[in-house]
Amino acid sequence: MKIYRANIIHTPTPGRLEIIEHGYIVVKSNGLIEGVYKDLPSDLDWRRQVMDYGDKLLIPAFNDLHVHAPQYRNLGLALDLELLPWLNTYTFPEETKYADPEYAGRLYRRFVHELWMQGTMRSAVFATIHPESTRILADLFIQAGMGAYVGLVGMNRNAPETLRNTTDELMDGMRMLKAHLDEHGNGLVRPIITPRFVPSCSDKMLTALGEYAQETGLPVQSHLSENRSEIDWVKELEPEATCYGDAYNKYGLFGQTPTLMAHCCYTDGEEMELMKQNGVFVVHCPTSNSNLSSGMAPIRKFLNAGIHVALGTDISAGHHMSMLRVMQYAIQVSKLNYAQTHGEMPFLSLSEVFYLATKGGGSFFGKVGSFEPGYEFDALLIDDSYLNYDHYTLPQRLERYLYLGDDRDIKRRFCRGVELTEPAY
Amino acid sequence: MKIYRANIIHTPTPGRLEIIEHGYIVVKSNGLIEGVYKDLPSDLDWRRQVMDYGDKLLIPAFNDLHVHAPQYRNLGLALDLELLPWLNTYTFPEETKYADPEYAGRLYRRFVHELWMQGTMRSAVFATIHPESTRILADLFIQAGMGAYVGLVGMNRNAPETLRNTTDELMDGMRMLKAHLDEHGNGLVRPIITPRFVPSCSDKMLTALGEYAQETGLPVQSHLSENRSEIDWVKELEPEATCYGDAYNKYGLFGQTPTLMAHCCYTDGEEMELMKQNGVFVVHCPTSNSNLSSGMAPIRKFLNAGIHVALGTDISAGHHMSMLRVMQYAIQVSKLNYAQTHGEMPFLSLSEVFYLATKGGGSFFGKVGSFEPGYEFDALLIDDSYLNYDHYTLPQRLERYLYLGDDRDIKRRFCRGVELTEPAY
Repeated sequence: MKIYRANIIHTPTPGRLEIIEHGYIVVKSNGLIEGVYKDLPSDLDWRRQVMDYGDKLLIPAFNDLHVHAPQYRNLGLALDLELLPWLNTYTFPEETKYADPEYAGRLYRRFVHELWMQGTMRSAVFATIHPESTRILADLFIQAGMGAYVGLVGMNRNAPETLRNTTDELMDGMRMLKAHLDEHGNGLVRPIITPRFVPSCSDKMLTALGEYAQETGLPVQSHLSENRSEIDWVKELEPEATCYGDAYNKYGLFGQTPTLMAHCCYTDGEEMELMKQNGVFVVHCPTSNSNLSSGMAPIRKFLNAGIHVALGTDISAGHHMSMLRVMQYAIQVSKLNYAQTHGEMPFLSLSEVFYLATKGGGSFFGKVGSFEPGYEFDALLIDDSYLNYDHYTLPQRLERYLYLGDDRDIKRRFCRGVELTEPAY
Repeated sequence: MKIYRANIIHTPTPGRLEIIEHGYIVVKSNGLIEGVYKDLPSDLDWRRQVMDYGDKLLIPAFNDLHVHAPQYRNLGLALDLELLPWLNTYTFPEETKYADPEYAGRLYRRFVHELWMQGTMRSAVFATIHPESTRILADLFIQAGMGAYVGLVGMNRNAPETLRNTTDELMDGMRMLKAHLDEHGNGLVRPIITPRFVPSCSDKMLTALGEYAQETGLPVQSHLSENRSEIDWVKELEPEATCYGDAYNKYGLFGQTPTLMAHCCYTDGEEMELMKQNGVFVVHCPTSNSNLSSGMAPIRKFLNAGIHVALGTDISAGHHMSMLRVMQYAIQVSKLNYAQTHGEMPFLSLSEVFYLATKGGGSFFGKVGSFEPGYEFDALLIDDSYLNYDHYTLPQRLERYLYLGDDRDIKRRFCRGVELTEPAY
């Protein structure tokens, strides 16, 4: 058992901060939270074990539910095109390099290190079509002690010849990855079924992936309704689907097992209804949607409809790996949307996006992203003393950290109860 | 004379990077640039003086053309309201505290330190209505060696009783500030005529300020067409003005002397024509316009019309003092605008916003913001080695620094030829 003392802030309920000033959090040896206490039980044995972090902040770690590991080298680059030409011009050529496991290992090491640095303890990751390189990425997560869903990507059409796998290659790779992670993943690093997006995958591939989802119960991740040209293209490619989402649904890849759909900038009507019915998660990527001129996803509408929402950096269409930035943009884009629509929908609040970045995304991993009893202890210890030079309240200190902070402020990182040291890179 | 060697990048022409790999920049003892050279003249005396900064980047320093110094304590806070309620609820109460010169000195020291930290060597600053506190701010700029236009704010209506000055008090304060800076400002720190915005200033105050502009030639700064409710209010208050801008123009406060107008989210038609005719600068504050749900200023339209554009952080409506963030948002907001209008106007490019943050804003201070001969040497030395772990070109290195960098990367700061040490705070 471990006991930490600090200013504890989390959001068990969407949009409502729970704050325990100089409180205690008790973590069992299995990494699960026993409870959060304003005062410690008088048990002397407990008192001896307290790790006192003084006036620092202790918050749930961040969860990035949509991120492309092999685009790490392109971070901060090549943001002058819209989605489809951007893929062909910048992204596919970079991903092709991951055929080389040596290259993959070198760059993936940096990627995993930066996740650690930015305090992102869990992520849902797109790798590439290359099984060996994808296994290397999974192993790096295991070594780092961080949680991840790692996706070997399926794509067998509308991509360069060098960046296509056959359905058989994909399924062989998936089985290899699953066997490897069943044995070595500790339940923290797991595979996820990952058709890149409808335009990249033939009917045959989508059928095989849908059957594999049904057979294994593995979760699914993909892209949905990100960009107008993409949506038109999907209509051409899948004329029988009633909407873009239906083109996944008819293959059993839309909530039949837990499912993440990134973007949803133009999701509405039937597609929204289907997401709600099937419990599909929207992964909101506002930095990416700004950088690729995709548009402003109607997150308030999704929340009002009771649809699960998580946040993603979507690098390298997103320009930064910090979830702080993603939270800021989630609020700001919702405000620009609010201004454009003359205030039709209330914009997102700080505590709402803090929920989305912690428990909202964490819930895809199980009991993750909150400090409630039975939750896995994923946490960040924040030293905001340089921001706290005047009389700021705890809600204000959180707000200032979320808007002004960066990786320097994170002093300790915990995933499932274990304090993680800096991974090699 | 001083000679610096580094990778030199600047934008003498809007939208076009000029890059001199391992070039030399020669700075005369008066702080003005002699020239930039790929190879150094063979003069041995020159060669002995080279300060070699190796593979680092040397770029023009940033210029922040709209920033509220007394809102520094509120940075990262209180962003849940639109402009007018935000002013009354959060901003005016904080500015009222600056009646106390002790408080002002303590907070302004931090503000000036952070400008230095973020590499902003010149700024156009709103202080408050308080002459003594405003002089303290000006003195802090002088001590730091940084350039600034410092504005004693005029406001005598629609503000709390405690945050109003009379026209006489304002004019006395302006004359005091001008006399002080004429004597001590070294031409680097200068006063600027600063009516807060039309709703805050009576006809009498605006008349007096217009006359003072004509008498002294001092420049002017204010706010324009930021928010829909504000524009409606100005229409009520100044029914005879043909547009919001005309409400300044008729008092001689709209380009009769050099003029900065922040925001211009809804500027169009006659107002735009008037800005163009009078050479009024638009100061684009995209972080602020996002945070206060103000809207997306049509910057491409202003640039196409040949209107001067600069950038501003507008803290604390802007949530961060880094001009890097402002550049990022300037591009991204233009992309969201582009998506909303189905691609009507091309979005801003990286080199365009780099121009706006350096020479675009710098031109308000004279020959500032570029490394052309005769320009004042305002520069930042950037160590991006942690971002440059693979084979990146110099344009890519600049791009990655602008998207991913922060204050840590700035190793040296120069203003008018002098390397500035860290100010006390």
